[in-house]
Amino acid sequence: MKVTKVKSASNSYHVYVGENIRCDLNSYLPKDYSSIFIVTDEIVAKHYLEEIKKSISHKHVYSSVIPYGEKSKNVNTFYQLHTDAIEFGLDRQSLIIALGGGVVGDVAGFVAATYMRGVDFIQMPTTILAHDSSVGGKVAINHEQGKNLIGNFYPPAAVVYDVQTLQTLNDKEIRSGYAELIKEALIQDDAFFQSLLASDLSSLTNDVLANQLNRGIEIKASIVEEDERESGVRKYLNLGHTLGHALESIIGYGVRTHGEMVAIGLLFAIRVSEKVFSIKLPYDQLLQWLNVNAFPIQLTNINKQQVLNRMKLDKKTVNTTIQMVLLKDIAQPVVVEISDEDLLNYLDSFLKEIENNVNLRMGE
Amino acid sequence: MKVTKVKSASNSYHVYVGENIRCDLNSYLPKDYSSIFIVTDEIVAKHYLEEIKKSISHKHVYSSVIPYGEKSKNVNTFYQLHTDAIEFGLDRQSLIIALGGGVVGDVAGFVAATYMRGVDFIQMPTTILAHDSSVGGKVAINHEQGKNLIGNFYPPAAVVYDVQTLQTLNDKEIRSGYAELIKEALIQDDAFFQSLLASDLSSLTNDVLANQLNRGIEIKASIVEEDERESGVRKYLNLGHTLGHALESIIGYGVRTHGEMVAIGLLFAIRVSEKVFSIKLPYDQLLQWLNVNAFPIQLTNINKQQVLNRMKLDKKTVNTTIQMVLLKDIAQPVVVEISDEDLLNYLDSFLKEIENNVNLRMGE
Ligand SMILES: NC(=O)c1ccc[n+]([C@@H]2O[C@H](COP(=O)([O-])OP(=O)(O)OC[C@H]3O[C@@H](n4cnc5c(N)ncnc54)[C@H](O)[C@@H]3O)[C@@H](O)[C@H]2O)c1
Ligand SMILES: NC(=O)c1ccc[n+]([C@@H]2O[C@H](COP(=O)([O-])OP(=O)(O)OC[C@H]3O[C@@H](n4cnc5c(N)ncnc54)[C@H](O)[C@@H]3O)[C@@H](O)[C@H]2O)c1
Ligand SMILES: [Zn+2]
Ligand SMILES: [Zn+2]
Repeated sequence: MKVTKVKSASNSYHVYVGENIRCDLNSYLPKDYSSIFIVTDEIVAKHYLEEIKKSISHKHVYSSVIPYGEKSKNVNTFYQLHTDAIEFGLDRQSLIIALGGGVVGDVAGFVAATYMRGVDFIQMPTTILAHDSSVGGKVAINHEQGKNLIGNFYPPAAVVYDVQTLQTLNDKEIRSGYAELIKEALIQDDAFFQSLLASDLSSLTNDVLANQLNRGIEIKASIVEEDERESGVRKYLNLGHTLGHALESIIGYGVRTHGEMVAIGLLFAIRVSEKVFSIKLPYDQLLQWLNVNAFPIQLTNINKQQVLNRMKLDKKTVNTTIQMVLLKDIAQPVVVEISDEDLLNYLDSFLKEIENNVNLRMGE
Repeated sequence: MKVTKVKSASNSYHVYVGENIRCDLNSYLPKDYSSIFIVTDEIVAKHYLEEIKKSISHKHVYSSVIPYGEKSKNVNTFYQLHTDAIEFGLDRQSLIIALGGGVVGDVAGFVAATYMRGVDFIQMPTTILAHDSSVGGKVAINHEQGKNLIGNFYPPAAVVYDVQTLQTLNDKEIRSGYAELIKEALIQDDAFFQSLLASDLSSLTNDVLANQLNRGIEIKASIVEEDERESGVRKYLNLGHTLGHALESIIGYGVRTHGEMVAIGLLFAIRVSEKVFSIKLPYDQLLQWLNVNAFPIQLTNINKQQVLNRMKLDKKTVNTTIQMVLLKDIAQPVVVEISDEDLLNYLDSFLKEIENNVNLRMGE
């Protein structure tokens, strides 16, 4: 088992990564709590809820199960979980456990941040993607008009990450998580990027998973420690997300995974970087790996102007000029303002490239 | 004009108290903002919104007006204000101004705390009560099952308090605010308590108001600086509120004011203190002043068990035993656990006393 310590403005917490540690949850509770409230989704509940409840030796353990998927990250689920917490009698000395992927982590974390103005919570990520969402303290729900628009910075009291639970993930979710690992590598570590491109997602062992997740967590932790509230370097973590988020909201959450959209966003960020800085980056290499690992790098009927409008809802936007994270090289991210006109041009040629990719793949 | 500096964990901010300072808002903005979004209620809007909008020299000033009163402090208003903020194009460098009483301050403050995970906000209190709610960083909305159950600790960037605006308050609201001043005096300053009991609420000058509000703010600030997150001394500020909140939710928000219910709660806390510590406190003196100043110290058809159940929803409750703030003497608050049985007894005899008060007043 590996432990990474993460410092935040208000506390520090440990990230435990190991095999089957879900069955030993007692050892990871940072203090005594008056009651424990587990929030999870219906798919994760089916696999792990009962065994985890059994593993906690505490008189007052409660749980709520929300529908799976992005559609649960809304104000109604948020309010309903508050209702549940009240009805279970949670007080300020209670603990909330977010058992699941990024959706559960974000919404349950935001409930913890706001229930009676804040109770402790523990992240128990069960997706690969959630190595990212569980570290750094961002919690949120979506607004109908944009992702993660309502939320807080609220670090967890601990992160307990059992890689064994990742064995039940389907291919789509494995891809989704690896897109974020690729992103972290691109921001900070060329060697890690190369090792990821050498990985075959159809045959990941627990060991490989744990190592790569630990490296991803280290990168994420180092960035959020330097800039918890996203006034500086933390913005780099949005590499690929300006377009990724816009596509998610246009195509519809749940149709493709977050990471699948981020993968397309990464390609776009790389292409724009090449143009803006007149450099060559491993666009082709990444595209090939994405194709081999069955990422859906296809887009049809996308309206550029609509994409631009969605991008403007991005939280990094200052007074309506779009800021994108670009790469001067691998591991050299920068934030750059892009005019609407340039962006529409970049989008135009990128969308054509993506169409060619479909032709390529169909012709394979 | 008087300035009080308040330190919080994340920042420090100034509280400006003066006459007509609302018309000079530019001078109090702590920095440049990309846009400014004023939230107020319909009554305050009618009196002050236009002149304040005019006094701000900024290209992007927007406003939303919510219905007046406690009923607006709910999740729907919260969400609607987020929608407004998005539609006005607010970004992370924007400022939200809460112009109004505690209701506007709490809900607009909570929107500021959560919009894109937090933007700056300024409190512009326009009620006497809001001297209390605008300082200390507590922001919240109500849950159907209890007051202030959903919120954050999120200090403002500044508090701009124009005592001139208090001249349009009706008697009910003046009483409501003075109950919180009495509370602060009881917690910390006997001389201040005596001076309040010497005030006639029907003839308050701007000078008297400013002085008494400044003293109240100093007390509040000293307590929240010591204990921002309410793990210790901040609990003292709940003097009178355990019963006050319970009564509010039973009688219905808006039927009587917050402070009017707190006034009854203060009497109850004093009576219980006398019994628990076998001491004599100025119960009669306070009751008389409340009667003279037309506080509605009457309760009919109150069910003790229902009161007890509502008290258990109080955020100070640890594992369902009720904790009350009591006084060992004036300016000597303590937190004491009270068993359900004792509490029902105290409530029983207190409710009878209150009935006698009605008889006394009717016989006047
Ligand atoms: N807070 C942050 O810093 C941050 C960072 C990145 C992403 N996010 C958010 O994370 C969310 C995406 O996270 P996600 O991809 O984990 O989504 P998710 O939580 O919806 O999980 C994806 C799917 O996998 C299922 N699942 C989860 N664990 C499983 C397991 N062990 N076995 C089988 N199935 C399992 C879920 O039921 C769901 O259907 C987005 O809402 C995104 O905005 C947040
Ligand atoms: N955050 C905190 O620390 C804290 C502390 C104490 C109370 N509170 C909250 O504050 C709220 C009560 O505050 P409040 O009593 O100010 O309520 P409020 O905001 O509803 O104001 C009371 C009434 O006065 C009207 N009004 C406001 N300013 C006016 C003016 N200048 N002239 C004429 N009318 C005016 C309002 O329209 C309203 O009808 C409660 O919700 C309570 O929970 C919060
Ligand atoms: Zn992401
Ligand atoms: Zn109060």
